[in-house]
Amino acid sequence: MNSEEFRQNAHQFVDWMADYLKDVETYPVKSQVRPKEIYNRIGDHFPVKGESIESIFEDFAKDLLPGITHWQSPNFYAYFNANSSPPSVLAEMLTATLGVQGMKWDTSPASTELEQRTMEWLRDAMAIPQGWIGVIQDTASSATLAAIISAREKMTNFDTNQNGVYAYSKLRIYCSEETHSSIEKGVKIAGLGKENIIKIKSDHLLQMDASELEKCIEEDKKNGHLPCCIISTVGTTGTTAIDPIERISAISERHNVWHHIDAAYLGSALLLPEYQHLIKGIEKADSFVFNPHKWMFTNFDCSVYFVKDKEALIQTFSILPEYLKTRNDNDVDNHCDWGIPLGRRFRSLKLWFVMRYYGLEEIQSKLRSHISMAEWLEEQVKASSDFHMIIPRTMNLVCFHFNPELSKNIDEVNKLNEDLLDQINSIGNIYLTHTKVEGKYTLRMVIGQTNVTMEHIREAWRHIQDVSNELISRNN
Amino acid sequence: MNSEEFRQNAHQFVDWMADYLKDVETYPVKSQVRPKEIYNRIGDHFPVKGESIESIFEDFAKDLLPGITHWQSPNFYAYFNANSSPPSVLAEMLTATLGVQGMKWDTSPASTELEQRTMEWLRDAMAIPQGWIGVIQDTASSATLAAIISAREKMTNFDTNQNGVYAYSKLRIYCSEETHSSIEKGVKIAGLGKENIIKIKSDHLLQMDASELEKCIEEDKKNGHLPCCIISTVGTTGTTAIDPIERISAISERHNVWHHIDAAYLGSALLLPEYQHLIKGIEKADSFVFNPHKWMFTNFDCSVYFVKDKEALIQTFSILPEYLKTRNDNDVDNHCDWGIPLGRRFRSLKLWFVMRYYGLEEIQSKLRSHISMAEWLEEQVKASSDFHMIIPRTMNLVCFHFNPELSKNIDEVNKLNEDLLDQINSIGNIYLTHTKVEGKYTLRMVIGQTNVTMEHIREAWRHIQDVSNELISRNN
Repeated sequence: MNSEEFRQNAHQFVDWMADYLKDVETYPVKSQVRPKEIYNRIGDHFPVKGESIESIFEDFAKDLLPGITHWQSPNFYAYFNANSSPPSVLAEMLTATLGVQGMKWDTSPASTELEQRTMEWLRDAMAIPQGWIGVIQDTASSATLAAIISAREKMTNFDTNQNGVYAYSKLRIYCSEETHSSIEKGVKIAGLGKENIIKIKSDHLLQMDASELEKCIEEDKKNGHLPCCIISTVGTTGTTAIDPIERISAISERHNVWHHIDAAYLGSALLLPEYQHLIKGIEKADSFVFNPHKWMFTNFDCSVYFVKDKEALIQTFSILPEYLKTRNDNDVDNHCDWGIPLGRRFRSLKLWFVMRYYGLEEIQSKLRSHISMAEWLEEQVKASSDFHMIIPRTMNLVCFHFNPELSKNIDEVNKLNEDLLDQINSIGNIYLTHTKVEGKYTLRMVIGQTNVTMEHIREAWRHIQDVSNELISRNN
Repeated sequence: MNSEEFRQNAHQFVDWMADYLKDVETYPVKSQVRPKEIYNRIGDHFPVKGESIESIFEDFAKDLLPGITHWQSPNFYAYFNANSSPPSVLAEMLTATLGVQGMKWDTSPASTELEQRTMEWLRDAMAIPQGWIGVIQDTASSATLAAIISAREKMTNFDTNQNGVYAYSKLRIYCSEETHSSIEKGVKIAGLGKENIIKIKSDHLLQMDASELEKCIEEDKKNGHLPCCIISTVGTTGTTAIDPIERISAISERHNVWHHIDAAYLGSALLLPEYQHLIKGIEKADSFVFNPHKWMFTNFDCSVYFVKDKEALIQTFSILPEYLKTRNDNDVDNHCDWGIPLGRRFRSLKLWFVMRYYGLEEIQSKLRSHISMAEWLEEQVKASSDFHMIIPRTMNLVCFHFNPELSKNIDEVNKLNEDLLDQINSIGNIYLTHTKVEGKYTLRMVIGQTNVTMEHIREAWRHIQDVSNELISRNN
């Protein structure tokens, strides 16, 4: 395919892309296919002869599209959003075309230096301390793993990298019961063992109980364990609970334990000055992660990891074989030494496009509108006699369930809500997911999609009520 | 930006993209900027007001492009290629637009099931055993880390995940002196300690000495260590040396040690039946990685990891909190349990586009043409009295140096070649990198770019000779 054929094909693709963005609401949000349905439509071997782009695209539309769940639909309220936006997609087109590696400064200086600048822009706008350094990781799972490993190295004077963890008597990791599953994954990968994760109990708002944390650390110290890392959360995945960062940071400082703040989802809210108090005390913490690819309109993958002690990070990951040496190594940042993968895409480009195209004010205004829509929805739930809040809303996630008869039989209510969720998702007008809170099956409705409006929320709420009513009358 | 504005902007971007692909050879391959030059052109804070796409794009062209190293130029002979191709870029445009998450089957069934199919296509075309299962990882570094962790878990009966590695007496990892730096990185992350990497000496072709490997394993066993994982390489980064896979696999089977084959770069050559003998014996090994994003015309990131015992992989990484549970969990593959990150891009789409657009025959023909160009270059070097091969070529990398006076002073010759490389890369017509082989500074010329032709190679060789001659006459 020469550049003229590429041009022609790409123009056709752009027309489809623009149509898709316009029509995304006409698809069922959640794909309705059954397991193996897509698999069975795809040939069973590597085609020997090449085919035309037209015929490949035709199969994409016919065979694959029914198996797509439409994450960019404003009717997507599931999990957390993985938002994109038109300026971000435009930037991804350039990134794919340039196809550069940002692993070393030398391999594309613009990739490294635009990343430095965009990280500084975010740091300053989010009231993260001056002096902290940022780097883009693929996901918060990888960033949190980086934090755990850095903590492990720093707490063992960088001996573990050299000799393994054998000589230590159980390094301990502290987090709340509500912390994301990636912490357990990271601790296991780091060779520290799931058993050494101390899950601190949460209060009635599902926030970590800080006094309990301190008690556990003190007890571990008495028993000869080595407190290694505390992971707090600003916006848990289940319910967006917010741990008391200031108190936890003071404890981490007092006991000299690495404190990593996981703000993967709610981090974006720190672009709003009225929420920056949530990370008061962060200067006593050590690292922080948030995902612009969730609630900041930037295509996945783009997870931003800030760290206070850059040297601890680099000493943990740095490796310099001959074939990677360059003359500039002492004068520049080589981001391959700031995380697990060696190769790196030019990910700052999309972030830069988003930040410049919208500007801080427009992004703030979008975030505030999402929060106020969630506030409206919370009011509707509170005013309803059939639906009930499971836990107070902290930001733009509403956690509720359906219990029209105020039944005390938790299994029965849970079953009802599980059926309701299945029914809603199989209709496909909107997509919700669930969690459990103290045994209660909880419907989660996240209001954070780039293009969601008040009209969508009203319609979604009407729809939830209609489906619930139908479910009840069918059951009776 | 509504969909019509997006359409208009995207059409303009496409014209630039097509022009870029046409004109890529007009840029200096390696960016010529100095450290901080790009950084200083970028504003120092998050813009408050939004700006037009036109003005952002203008700054991209003016301020960032000079800091880009052009990896998609046919004159790029550095490191290993990170190739893309027009069908791959087209697919990336769709991927960015859909913005779906392939973390669970439910979150986009087409992402999971197209990945399953493309992995089977590759497995069968590359003579990887039936029954092995493939999954896309971001990079070979992550895939190799997955292999090391899986090995660690399997060798400790999945006790490390639970309790950490404390109870074990030094798990041992074996690789050759030439193995990629990601092995050391992976072992450190896994908490096993760099000291427990046993670097097996290599022969004169820089291939692992298999008898030495077996001796080391036996000795470690005698001393109470636990041999955990052997990592062999098909195509080392320095010189594309190829370890004796059949002998190593027999040893791994005999001693019941996990055997991971790192074919990150040369794996693509297994699409050619005449090279499939290189992995004879693989059925006794345990895992295998290769990167279509290197030499198979597919945009980074796309690293393919095959594993014999799928359950060992999943048991290592699987985590299922309530908010990630779906009704289909028992009937489907959830790829978030097959690696470190939770979120996953729809990466199989570009692979599918590349495989279908070119077909196996055209890809084979491209690979063979690269190999024969490297053969031609090797002949030129051999025929030259000024240049000398450092080590015999195995595939499409030529390792040579400049030593017109046959000097025995290694420091002097190394200095000459270092200067030559700097000079070549600062002119910008072509881009080479280096390694060291037995103390000798070695120029590496990798011939694997999607659009490289014999004319490029002839011109590059002429250019290298011209620059060397100038350097000599200037020195005299």
